[in-house]
Amino acid sequence: MASGLASAALKARIRRPSMLSKLCNPEDLLHHFPNGAYIGWSGFTGVGYPKKMPTFLADHVEKNNLKGKLRYTLFVGASSGAETENRWAALDMIERRSPHQVGKSIAKGINNGQIKFFDKHLSMFPVDLVYGFYTKDRPSNKLDVVVVEATDIKEDGSIVPGASVGATPELIQLAEKVIIEVNTSLPSFEGLHDITMTDLPPRRKPYLIMGVEDRIGTTSIPIDPEKVVGILHSDYQDQTQPNTPPDAASRAIAGHLIEFFEHEVKHGRLPKSLLPLQSGIGNIANAVIGGLTESNFYNLKVWTEVIQDTFLDLFDSGRLDFATATSVRFSPNGFKRFYDNLDSYYNKLLLRSQQVSNSPEIIRRLGVIGMNTPVEVDIYAHANSTCVMGSRMLNGLGGSADFLRSSKYSIMHTPSTRPSKTDPHGVSCIVPMCTHVDQTEHDLDVIVTENGLADVRGLSPRERARVIIDKCAHELYRPILKSYFEKAEFECLRKGMGHEPHLLFNSFDLHKALEEEGSMLKVKGF
Amino acid sequence: MASGLASAALKARIRRPSMLSKLCNPEDLLHHFPNGAYIGWSGFTGVGYPKKMPTFLADHVEKNNLKGKLRYTLFVGASSGAETENRWAALDMIERRSPHQVGKSIAKGINNGQIKFFDKHLSMFPVDLVYGFYTKDRPSNKLDVVVVEATDIKEDGSIVPGASVGATPELIQLAEKVIIEVNTSLPSFEGLHDITMTDLPPRRKPYLIMGVEDRIGTTSIPIDPEKVVGILHSDYQDQTQPNTPPDAASRAIAGHLIEFFEHEVKHGRLPKSLLPLQSGIGNIANAVIGGLTESNFYNLKVWTEVIQDTFLDLFDSGRLDFATATSVRFSPNGFKRFYDNLDSYYNKLLLRSQQVSNSPEIIRRLGVIGMNTPVEVDIYAHANSTCVMGSRMLNGLGGSADFLRSSKYSIMHTPSTRPSKTDPHGVSCIVPMCTHVDQTEHDLDVIVTENGLADVRGLSPRERARVIIDKCAHELYRPILKSYFEKAEFECLRKGMGHEPHLLFNSFDLHKALEEEGSMLKVKGF
Repeated sequence: MASGLASAALKARIRRPSMLSKLCNPEDLLHHFPNGAYIGWSGFTGVGYPKKMPTFLADHVEKNNLKGKLRYTLFVGASSGAETENRWAALDMIERRSPHQVGKSIAKGINNGQIKFFDKHLSMFPVDLVYGFYTKDRPSNKLDVVVVEATDIKEDGSIVPGASVGATPELIQLAEKVIIEVNTSLPSFEGLHDITMTDLPPRRKPYLIMGVEDRIGTTSIPIDPEKVVGILHSDYQDQTQPNTPPDAASRAIAGHLIEFFEHEVKHGRLPKSLLPLQSGIGNIANAVIGGLTESNFYNLKVWTEVIQDTFLDLFDSGRLDFATATSVRFSPNGFKRFYDNLDSYYNKLLLRSQQVSNSPEIIRRLGVIGMNTPVEVDIYAHANSTCVMGSRMLNGLGGSADFLRSSKYSIMHTPSTRPSKTDPHGVSCIVPMCTHVDQTEHDLDVIVTENGLADVRGLSPRERARVIIDKCAHELYRPILKSYFEKAEFECLRKGMGHEPHLLFNSFDLHKALEEEGSMLKVKGF
Repeated sequence: MASGLASAALKARIRRPSMLSKLCNPEDLLHHFPNGAYIGWSGFTGVGYPKKMPTFLADHVEKNNLKGKLRYTLFVGASSGAETENRWAALDMIERRSPHQVGKSIAKGINNGQIKFFDKHLSMFPVDLVYGFYTKDRPSNKLDVVVVEATDIKEDGSIVPGASVGATPELIQLAEKVIIEVNTSLPSFEGLHDITMTDLPPRRKPYLIMGVEDRIGTTSIPIDPEKVVGILHSDYQDQTQPNTPPDAASRAIAGHLIEFFEHEVKHGRLPKSLLPLQSGIGNIANAVIGGLTESNFYNLKVWTEVIQDTFLDLFDSGRLDFATATSVRFSPNGFKRFYDNLDSYYNKLLLRSQQVSNSPEIIRRLGVIGMNTPVEVDIYAHANSTCVMGSRMLNGLGGSADFLRSSKYSIMHTPSTRPSKTDPHGVSCIVPMCTHVDQTEHDLDVIVTENGLADVRGLSPRERARVIIDKCAHELYRPILKSYFEKAEFECLRKGMGHEPHLLFNSFDLHKALEEEGSMLKVKGF
C-alpha cells in the first residue's frame, strides 16, 4: 500500500517518515506466517493486542479450509482479545501457547490435548523468553514474527503501546521480524508508559524504583527499524466485557479485609495510607477496591498487574494518589470514562512491562498488599490457582504467585462455597488438601471468605487448620472439615508424623463426592 | 563477674571498654529466661550459634527437674548446634520454633505435637519478624531476649559474628535485651561479613549488589549498648559433623549436570564461567561441587546459602574466584583447614544476612544456577522439600524456594529411588503426585537423577511427564509411572480436563503401597 493512501489521522501517528513506506495490508504479510511459525503478540488481559493481522489470518484459514494446516506457537504476555486468540483456537491454529489465556475455545483446546499450554509466573516468562529457554530447539533461537499494537510510532522508530505493555519489550527483543498495528481508534498513550528492556546476567541492574510513581525508563519501546516488515492500520478498540456488580459475599469479604487493614494500622504494622495495593481480577477484587472507595483510607497507592474500573472510582473518590500496572483493562463504559477524562488521570498512572509490574524485587521492597482469588484453599493454607480437580486448566497462574510470594501481606479471598451443577453449595472452596498447589503454605498470610478472616501469620499447620476451618469454612462444611482434621491429627500424631496431619488416602474424598454424587456435601466418613 | 577476671584473649576481643563491665556468668542471666519467653539465637546451619547460655539453661532444667516447666518460643535463622537446640527439645523446652531445624529430638517433638513449628522462606522470615508478624499477639511486639555469638565487640559496641550471619541483624533489631557470647576459640572473623539491616516499607531501598563480591554494608552488626544485659565468654567451636563421601549415584548426577552446563555454554545461554552457583546441603550437592573441581570451568563464582567443604576444594583447584553465603559450615576437618589458611580465603569470601544471601531480588538479577535436593518430585515437576508422606516434617523449607523460584536455572537433583525398610528401591523419588508441594511446576527447569536429566523448560505438563519418566525414573518404576500417566491421560482427555492429567483418587497409590506393603513397587493397578 502506498503511503499516499494513509489518512491524515494515521500519518499523524507515524512520526518517522520512512516508516510510512511500510504501510501495507494484512494480505501482503501472509507469507510471514508459515505453518509452524513462532509468533508473539502484544497484549495483556485482553487489551493492547493486535487486531488486524490475527483477524485476517483467522479469516484466511476459515475461507480456505485450512483448519489444522496453519498451526503456530503463540506467546502473548497474558490474554488477548476473544475475537482474535479464541477464534484462532477454534480454528485449530494454536499448537503451543504460553503463559496465560482466557477464552472458551482456548481452554477447550488445552484440556482436550489440542493445544500444548504451559503457564509460568508472568514476571518470569519474558526473562525466560530472552534467555532463549522457549526457543532453544530452534536453529535461530528467535521468534519468527511479532505483531504489536501501537498508538504512535515516534521519530526514532520506537513505538508507544496502547492499554498494555505486558511482554512486548521482550517479544520485540527476541523477534526476527516485527509487524506494527497503529491503532487510530485509541487516543495516543504517549507518556503513560515507563519502558525498560531486559539485559542478561551478569549485566543486569537493580530496578531503582522506591515508590509506585518512580520512572526508570523511557516512554516508548525501541525497535530496530530493519526488523519492521510491515505496518497496518488498526481501527477498532479493545473488545472488553462489562463487569458484574459485586454480590453480597464479595461485599462481606471486602468488609472483613478493610477491618483487618484498620486493625493492622492500629497496631502500627501498616501506615495510615496503607502500602501499595495489588488486586487481582474478578468480582471480589472489584468489591475490595469498591469498599476502599467508601473507607477512611486516603492517599492510597496501587502497585498491581491490571487496573480495572473500580480504580477509576477510587481515583474519583479522592482516595487514590497513584496507580501503576502493566495494563488498564476497563469495561467498554470504563474505557469511555477513561478516554473522556484522560487529562485528569494522566499524571496519576504509569504502565510498565509485566516483568516490572510483577517483579518480586519491587513487590517485596514496596511491601505490597497482595490479594488474589483461588480455585480452592486447603486447611493448611496452600492454594490452587489453576487446575480444577488437579487437572482441568482454567486460565493459568498469571501473576498470583509473583505477588503472593513476595507481598508483605499475602491474602487469598474466596467465597466459602461455589455451586455445583446440582447443589448451590456443592463445592467447598476450603478443602482438606488442594488438588493442585500453586501457592504454598509458606506464602500465604491471610485467608478470607464471606464468613470471616483467618490470620495465619506465625501459626503452625495444626493451628492454621483450626483457624481456617473456624473462620473461613461455610457452616455446612465446617463439621466435615473439622472431622477430617481431627481424625488426621489423631492418626498422624499417633504415628509420630503429625506436623501437618493428613489422611493421605482420603485427602480428596470431598472431590470424589463431588465427582460421583454432584456435591462435596455428600462425602462419607467425616 | 568482675572484668578483672577476663583473660587477655577475651579482653582483646572486647574493644569497647564499658562492655567489659557486662561480663558475667550464665547463672547471672537466668532471670531473663522466664517460662514463655520469646527468645532469639544467632546461628545458621549449625554454626555461629550461642553455646554457653543455652547449655546452661538445659543443665538448669535437667538438674532441677524443670522439664516441661520452662518452655520458650525460639527463633533462629536456621538450625543451631545439636548440643544446644536438640537438647532443649529433648528437655521439652521448645514451645514454638521457626523457621528451620535439624535434630532428632526436635523433629520428634514437631511430629508428635510437642513443638509448634512453622517453616518459612529463609529470605522472608527475618522481614516478617521485623514487621512484627510473629510477635503480634504480645503487648511489646518484641522478642524478650536474643543471645548471639560474636568473635569481637568493636569500639562502637557493634559485634562481629562468627561463621554465620543468618537472621542475627533482625533478631537484634527486634530484641528488648541482648546477651553476647564472645567466642575466643574462634579466630576473629572481622572483615568477612557484609552486614545490612532491615528498614520497613515505604523506606526500603534496593540491594545494590551486581556481582557476588559487591559490598553494600558494614563489617559488624550494630547493637544499642543499653540493650546488652550480659556478656559471656564462650570457649568451644561449632560442633559440626564430618561429611560422607559422594556415592556412585551422586557422582552420576554431577556428571549429567556438568554435561548440561557444557551444553548451555555451547548454545550461548550461559557464559563460559557459568553464572553464580547455589548448591544445597548434602551428598549430591557435595558431588556436584566436587565434579566442578575436576571440570573445564574456571573463574566460577558462588552465590549460595551455605559454604561447605567441597567449596574449599573448588577454591584450591583454582577454579573458584569468589563465594558468598550466609554461613560457612565446614566439617571439623574443614574448619581446621579453613582457619589454618584463613589468609588465602579471606579476600574471596563474604558472609551476608540470610535476607540478602537468599534475596529473590539478587538471585534473579545475578541469574543464579540453583540446585537442591527434594523429598520427592512428581511427573509434572512439582517438588516436596519438607513433609514425608505429606505430614512428617524433616527439617523445613530452608532456602530451597528462595532459590528455585528466582534462579535462572532451577534444578532439582535426587536419587531416583531410596530404600524403604524392606526394599532397597522401596521408595521412588519420582511419583505421580507429590504428597506435599513446596516448589511448583512453574518454578523448576531441570530434574536430574543418576539415570539422566530432564530439561522441562517450555514444555506442557504432558510433555514434561513423558521426559521426566523417561529420563529420571528408576527402570523399576518407569513402567509403573508410564502406566499411571497414560491411564490418567486417557481418562482426563476423554473428560476434557487433560491439561495436567491425574487419576486424582489413585494419585497416592504408590505411597499407599509403601505404607501398607513396605514398597512402592508393590502398587497395584498400574
